[in-house]
Amino acid sequence: MYGVRPVVEVLRSGRREVYEILDASENREAAELANSLDIRVQQTGRDDLDELTGGGVHQGLAARVGGYPYSSLDEILAKPDALVVVLDEVTDPQNLGAILRVAEGAGASGVVIPKDRSAEVNATVAKASAGASEHVLVAKVTNLRRALDEMKGRGVWAFAAEGSESGKPDSTPYTGLDLAGPVALVLGSEGRGVRRLVRDGCDGGTYIPMFGEVSSLNVSAAAAVLLYEARRQRGG
Amino acid sequence: MYGVRPVVEVLRSGRREVYEILDASENREAAELANSLDIRVQQTGRDDLDELTGGGVHQGLAARVGGYPYSSLDEILAKPDALVVVLDEVTDPQNLGAILRVAEGAGASGVVIPKDRSAEVNATVAKASAGASEHVLVAKVTNLRRALDEMKGRGVWAFAAEGSESGKPDSTPYTGLDLAGPVALVLGSEGRGVRRLVRDGCDGGTYIPMFGEVSSLNVSAAAAVLLYEARRQRGG
Repeated sequence: MYGVRPVVEVLRSGRREVYEILDASENREAAELANSLDIRVQQTGRDDLDELTGGGVHQGLAARVGGYPYSSLDEILAKPDALVVVLDEVTDPQNLGAILRVAEGAGASGVVIPKDRSAEVNATVAKASAGASEHVLVAKVTNLRRALDEMKGRGVWAFAAEGSESGKPDSTPYTGLDLAGPVALVLGSEGRGVRRLVRDGCDGGTYIPMFGEVSSLNVSAAAAVLLYEARRQRGG
Repeated sequence: MYGVRPVVEVLRSGRREVYEILDASENREAAELANSLDIRVQQTGRDDLDELTGGGVHQGLAARVGGYPYSSLDEILAKPDALVVVLDEVTDPQNLGAILRVAEGAGASGVVIPKDRSAEVNATVAKASAGASEHVLVAKVTNLRRALDEMKGRGVWAFAAEGSESGKPDSTPYTGLDLAGPVALVLGSEGRGVRRLVRDGCDGGTYIPMFGEVSSLNVSAAAAVLLYEARRQRGG
């Protein structure tokens, strides 16, 4: 992985193996953290990092790390008053990264993604999340619908975010939802939205009112609005 | 400019000259709009669009257009109950585009950017805004501080968004602000935040509480949270 925030946060979180830091920028924060953890810091050139990261915006810092430490749904639900983000086929790594960042910032219990047809938490996503990927819990499940059923069985209410123009009769503006208790907010891909089978596994639909000419928000902006409304209702 | 949404929205809005549509994808929506406006649709190859857009994600559609129609501060303040976004040195076109999209979606009166040290509303920004740039009002001012003074003179309260860790003694969590009346929300660049001179021109500072390990939201996520809180307080 690469970039200042991702490398610093992977060191800070201690959630996965870090084999080596590759430094072309004499980054003091990373060096001090690595030293305190007995991790080797290899001085290297920016050209080498360019090549290694395939032209990623590495900011002179990279790390050789173990695989991403996905969590289980159980681990995410272990926290009281669950605030879960469920992503149905969000395939764009920039969007996934931005969502992980806002989920972490809003103190969400975790993010649930499907095994197939989703972006994975890779170096691009870690960078787009400004390193938040290393702190927030992410569960990768085989079947989103089953995960929703599991959550509902444990008292979590699930709401599917729909474009404000979808006109579903049972859809509620997000400010009308009770988000103070355990909830899962289900967001779909831009364009297609939440798939029908997944939508049917939710307790209801919700939407963010749009006041202009453009018909929807970016999925990470929608996540920000919904998560912070939940926080507000919870007194934070 | 290029991309399906930007080209469709520039045609829908009618705010600027469109000389010609360049179509490599037989886009029906764009063709119908262009026909109704007597604008020529030139069939072209994707390779030509690749070259013309310098490798932009054009989705098979581009348009030759006039310059971006910036508004004046007066035009933005002409609407009742102003909800203005002021951007201090947001230089990243992706961030500017994302902010224009959420500002348009939240029905903001407009966005104010400085002439210098800011991204311009160009093709990249239009694409990142999903075409919202063609509907939302954007004013480019010589001096942000003077623009704030002007707004304050007209009864607009200005709040500077600060990182939650900045610990400024006079900073209020955003949910504690009265955003129902005319307000300007001032956002700075990631990293540096709002410059002191601009901050001093505001009525107060505000912050979005952070509940995780990462210390701030992306500037467009912050804009989304603040703008929709203003909307909520205004009964929307």
